[in-house]
Amino acid sequence: MAGNAFGKLFTLTTFGESHGKGVGGIIDGYPSGIGINLDFIQNELNRRRPGQSKLVTPRDEKDRIEILSGVFEGLSTGTPIAFVVMNADQRSNDYNDLSNVFRPSHADYTYIQKYGIRDHRGGGRSSARETLARVAGGAFAKLLLAKLGVTVNAYVSQIGRVQLEQSYDKLDLSLTEQNDVRCPDPMVAEKMVLEIEAARADRDSLGGIITCVAKGVPAGWGEPVFDRLQADLAKAMLSINAVKGFEYGSGFAGSAMRGSQHNDIFRPDPHNPGNIVMDTNRAGGILGGISSGQDIYFRTAFKPVATIMREQNTVDKDANPVTINPKGRHDVCVVPRAVPIVEAMAAMVLVDHYLRFEAYRRKDDINEGKS
Amino acid sequence: MAGNAFGKLFTLTTFGESHGKGVGGIIDGYPSGIGINLDFIQNELNRRRPGQSKLVTPRDEKDRIEILSGVFEGLSTGTPIAFVVMNADQRSNDYNDLSNVFRPSHADYTYIQKYGIRDHRGGGRSSARETLARVAGGAFAKLLLAKLGVTVNAYVSQIGRVQLEQSYDKLDLSLTEQNDVRCPDPMVAEKMVLEIEAARADRDSLGGIITCVAKGVPAGWGEPVFDRLQADLAKAMLSINAVKGFEYGSGFAGSAMRGSQHNDIFRPDPHNPGNIVMDTNRAGGILGGISSGQDIYFRTAFKPVATIMREQNTVDKDANPVTINPKGRHDVCVVPRAVPIVEAMAAMVLVDHYLRFEAYRRKDDINEGKS
Amino acid sequence: MAGNAFGKLFTLTTFGESHGKGVGGIIDGYPSGIGINLDFIQNELNRRRPGQSKLVTPRDEKDRIEILSGVFEGLSTGTPIAFVVMNADQRSNDYNDLSNVFRPSHADYTYIQKYGIRDHRGGGRSSARETLARVAGGAFAKLLLAKLGVTVNAYVSQIGRVQLEQSYDKLDLSLTEQNDVRCPDPMVAEKMVLEIEAARADRDSLGGIITCVAKGVPAGWGEPVFDRLQADLAKAMLSINAVKGFEYGSGFAGSAMRGSQHNDIFRPDPHNPGNIVMDTNRAGGILGGISSGQDIYFRTAFKPVATIMREQNTVDKDANPVTINPKGRHDVCVVPRAVPIVEAMAAMVLVDHYLRFEAYRRKDDINEGKS
Amino acid sequence: MAGNAFGKLFTLTTFGESHGKGVGGIIDGYPSGIGINLDFIQNELNRRRPGQSKLVTPRDEKDRIEILSGVFEGLSTGTPIAFVVMNADQRSNDYNDLSNVFRPSHADYTYIQKYGIRDHRGGGRSSARETLARVAGGAFAKLLLAKLGVTVNAYVSQIGRVQLEQSYDKLDLSLTEQNDVRCPDPMVAEKMVLEIEAARADRDSLGGIITCVAKGVPAGWGEPVFDRLQADLAKAMLSINAVKGFEYGSGFAGSAMRGSQHNDIFRPDPHNPGNIVMDTNRAGGILGGISSGQDIYFRTAFKPVATIMREQNTVDKDANPVTINPKGRHDVCVVPRAVPIVEAMAAMVLVDHYLRFEAYRRKDDINEGKS
Repeated sequence: MAGNAFGKLFTLTTFGESHGKGVGGIIDGYPSGIGINLDFIQNELNRRRPGQSKLVTPRDEKDRIEILSGVFEGLSTGTPIAFVVMNADQRSNDYNDLSNVFRPSHADYTYIQKYGIRDHRGGGRSSARETLARVAGGAFAKLLLAKLGVTVNAYVSQIGRVQLEQSYDKLDLSLTEQNDVRCPDPMVAEKMVLEIEAARADRDSLGGIITCVAKGVPAGWGEPVFDRLQADLAKAMLSINAVKGFEYGSGFAGSAMRGSQHNDIFRPDPHNPGNIVMDTNRAGGILGGISSGQDIYFRTAFKPVATIMREQNTVDKDANPVTINPKGRHDVCVVPRAVPIVEAMAAMVLVDHYLRFEAYRRKDDINEGKS
Repeated sequence: MAGNAFGKLFTLTTFGESHGKGVGGIIDGYPSGIGINLDFIQNELNRRRPGQSKLVTPRDEKDRIEILSGVFEGLSTGTPIAFVVMNADQRSNDYNDLSNVFRPSHADYTYIQKYGIRDHRGGGRSSARETLARVAGGAFAKLLLAKLGVTVNAYVSQIGRVQLEQSYDKLDLSLTEQNDVRCPDPMVAEKMVLEIEAARADRDSLGGIITCVAKGVPAGWGEPVFDRLQADLAKAMLSINAVKGFEYGSGFAGSAMRGSQHNDIFRPDPHNPGNIVMDTNRAGGILGGISSGQDIYFRTAFKPVATIMREQNTVDKDANPVTINPKGRHDVCVVPRAVPIVEAMAAMVLVDHYLRFEAYRRKDDINEGKS
Repeated sequence: MAGNAFGKLFTLTTFGESHGKGVGGIIDGYPSGIGINLDFIQNELNRRRPGQSKLVTPRDEKDRIEILSGVFEGLSTGTPIAFVVMNADQRSNDYNDLSNVFRPSHADYTYIQKYGIRDHRGGGRSSARETLARVAGGAFAKLLLAKLGVTVNAYVSQIGRVQLEQSYDKLDLSLTEQNDVRCPDPMVAEKMVLEIEAARADRDSLGGIITCVAKGVPAGWGEPVFDRLQADLAKAMLSINAVKGFEYGSGFAGSAMRGSQHNDIFRPDPHNPGNIVMDTNRAGGILGGISSGQDIYFRTAFKPVATIMREQNTVDKDANPVTINPKGRHDVCVVPRAVPIVEAMAAMVLVDHYLRFEAYRRKDDINEGKS
Repeated sequence: MAGNAFGKLFTLTTFGESHGKGVGGIIDGYPSGIGINLDFIQNELNRRRPGQSKLVTPRDEKDRIEILSGVFEGLSTGTPIAFVVMNADQRSNDYNDLSNVFRPSHADYTYIQKYGIRDHRGGGRSSARETLARVAGGAFAKLLLAKLGVTVNAYVSQIGRVQLEQSYDKLDLSLTEQNDVRCPDPMVAEKMVLEIEAARADRDSLGGIITCVAKGVPAGWGEPVFDRLQADLAKAMLSINAVKGFEYGSGFAGSAMRGSQHNDIFRPDPHNPGNIVMDTNRAGGILGGISSGQDIYFRTAFKPVATIMREQNTVDKDANPVTINPKGRHDVCVVPRAVPIVEAMAAMVLVDHYLRFEAYRRKDDINEGKS
């Protein structure tokens, strides 16, 4: 209820501060009998990890995940899966002079307004290090989705003013991981790298946009009113640090279209009599809050990093003017590292709705008088 | 859990189909002792009501709300407030020939995939008539917010290709209700009316964008991780029929900015020593998921209405090709009528977080050994 | 969150005061495609209804249920099922002189402490008339359980000092409805009637105990830690007006037994090789919070009715001493009318856990790469 | 949703198996600014710990709690508090021959029915070692309750056939911790010790009853319908391993009383004009689900320990008859060690309802137009 748990049937509850003992979580509602590939989970964390390329923060956390419960002889047991990543490389002293300062566009000010106290070291709970637990939760979700034939892939489609113009279905998403910015178009990726280098030279920071696609989701997942699939995806995305916007399918651009242009037309599948196909997917794979069987795709906007490596004016907690000049290690642009976070949050939403679908779906044997 | 309830401490659960007996809901978690102004609530429903202007659907529902419980001698009692609006003007026969047809870009197809059965009349549960219960819930929320000095105002900032360029703080929002399109700039409003008339002449439909502003929210509402205030607002908006996108503060445009341009700088309030002010508000009134005391503002994108008054190809439930040509009564553009829906959902999110803030906040007397 | 909703996947939210416009609820999470037998539902309400026999209150509510949504052409549609029973026979004037009085052992005092206001008429929200909505919700639950081969039957096993000694498996439960006290042993039933008549003659009231049995629940329902099946049953029972205790299986008496006497021994089923049977069931059909496949049985204790037809001293809201002498219509003993309430609450708990079981259970096709 | 989380506003989510890496949990919803006394928390765990006296299992876990987050410079920060107790003394080999055996009256059989897999070592998740996390959660709850002047004290009132006859208000509860059986009457305590020694000599086991009293709870906590204070207490108690029953106030015995005997009469407080007092408290401190300001007291029944140190017949997972003869370390009677568990669960229920009370209560400043 204090907002550190996500999902209804698949629930991830997280804990941890940037410079506390560790960050982790508990997954409650993971079905039993699923093979748990630890290497896959660790690799997902590595994709989010600082220090993974020359473009991102050099903080060198090993970020080794330890599973504390819920897995036995390589299989999930249906009981809670707890995991923790201990914090190793904490240079808390870098932050000591910030203990009473409200950094611009950070959560320092609002935490004090809400709680009256905060662990200021490295941003404490408001640090993006918290997203590590989301990536771990998402990795477990992906292991289950893989069994269902569902994949979730995100990539960077904009950094600063550099945009990737093509839509996801014109791209080879297998290329996403082959460059440091996680853009599947190598030419655009190079431009993005230059954009980042230019901002770094200016001691400034950048934002960007991530596009995400889920394939293989069958028709029928989602709930029709408040818990629409897109509503839960929107909440998932807007819960990520620095996110300012979400759109799916035709998105904001769709608002300028007319209905005759926008509608996706059903027609008989010429290859599978009795089946129905649509040639367009402006709906984004969701109709009335429920998956249609088409690809689900959406875009998430990130603001530029709030910490910039130059002098900024601000105030301390007593409203005295102060000047800050960060010495810590900070990304110029977090968007490439946010790709696995977006995927993780989307994967958890999908698993949650898969389980809800299972709970409510018609069962063939229900009229036979036995469960 | 089947997604017909919204909110955690202030919970609205809704029911009803377009052509069933009625539409309504139960509010659980409304504090006691709040004066319930029934005229205000009815007026909010009237703002959403079909037939309110020549621009919208002529279906003439009276939409009279009846309160069934939870109010006694003009005050809320703290017990559940149930309300119902009975359906009066149902021309279900208009829809009989659609009982086995999947209308393009509607939920007909996905409802059948999920449930195997649907009340097809007027769209059943997937009809936007469901939003009536949201407006009622939001009206109760607004009555509580008013006591706290919080206002929530939305307006139409785009219809089709006609955009209102100014930001909300340059507009006189008291003008919003003075024209049929609910645009506070009378000149732009006229262009929007023409845009709608043109689409109607083409037997086509339009989408648009609604901007919403909440003023008076004190610093400290919201939760820091998954239940960030913006995350709950995003979910609220994306749960509304036809919504495709959400952005707050700098939004998608903020992704192209640099940190040095984007950061909102704190400075001492020259008029109130010890107070802190910000001259800009690209954050949108929320930092780290928690309200900062500045205005909260966001934009919500609506796709064009799916029902258009022309022949369209589609399929029936057996995948046979059919042609439909709607005879019912339909809006060319629902966006003006969606203004109170956006306000209602936002108001309910704010009340929910107000109650959560109250639950968790430090109490001065807690060290005194009594509650 | 304000406690007017029950269940997680099958959720009943209720509303209504004794002398308000009506009492009803919304069921969210009812699966689609279930035949809704309205006569059965009405009959369940009739079993709880006042005025059903000469032993109970003569208040003559027709208690006709009206379904407002969620049922189409005789089948559930998967959307919320709203229902209402309008209040007809309200003699609110009987209560006017009680508007400022705190009746002994009623909720009048604590409602004012909590809310500062209350609808005093007939007890308002604290009236047992609220349980009508539970019985309706339970009736829907029973319709679903019947398809699964699960039955829920309760009966009166004690009224005042008259006890039914036999355990449930020695009784013919089909006799329960054949007498006014709902005791399946006709001889004991007669004694119970005499006990009630004697208390009535003394202008006094009685409590009692209800035993409930669920048969046909397969092994595997329930959750292992906090949401143990017995924990949810206990909560369900203690949420009923006037209930003071709950025990299942061996119950309180089991505390005096030794392990060697108490353990239920597994042995091979001689008739079905590979099957396992137990000859005893002191566990009450639940092991580790999860159903074992044996009968689930439990007992619920009710205190005597607080309203007695004699003069009692009490105070008004200003702590002045007053004397009350009720004129309303009141049961001497509510326990027979509570039988359908106990069944309803138990049925809703079971459906909730059935849906949870479905959500989490292993699926044979999950390794095939499709859902 | 899979039942490993408890509470709504104060939520404890737990994890861990008896012989896994550790047992722990996350508290979400703990208010900020509360002093966290680690010694107190460790001492609560010590009260539950095995090996604390010659009467209980000699398994010598140090059970040292480690706080991973949410506490900064000795104060709670309002963010999630995670804690873990690593498992040290695991003699898993003691259990290897039980990996395919269903022990009588244990959860082995139902876990396999539900999950198809289980960590059999030491009972895995179904082990009472899981309650360690409850005691830690309850310790945090008690620290908050102490600031409010609320105390929660439990004691053993029955072991086997030895009963403590006096009611709680005739006892000196400060004596509870002065003997190994946690019975505040030293004479009865001695008889209980003899009862345990006799059962041990017989290689048998015992159950018992725990009484719990909460003092200082002000009037107004609790919700009036499904989340009655007693309903949440009942659920809390029935969620503890081995518990078979719950009663509060007059309990099961009250069912045989008449209303005229049972009602608690309000009268003016002769010492505090305007105040109201009651001379009796058969209600158990709760009226209509809401605390009355009187003491809250209840009793919880535990069955005898299922593991007995003698040969028992049972079956393996293939329904073959087997004989087991436990070699592990097991309590003859767990009831004394369950005293802190009962207190912990009760304390968490009370904190949860305290926060709910705070969320919904009337605020004096709400009519002033500011929060």
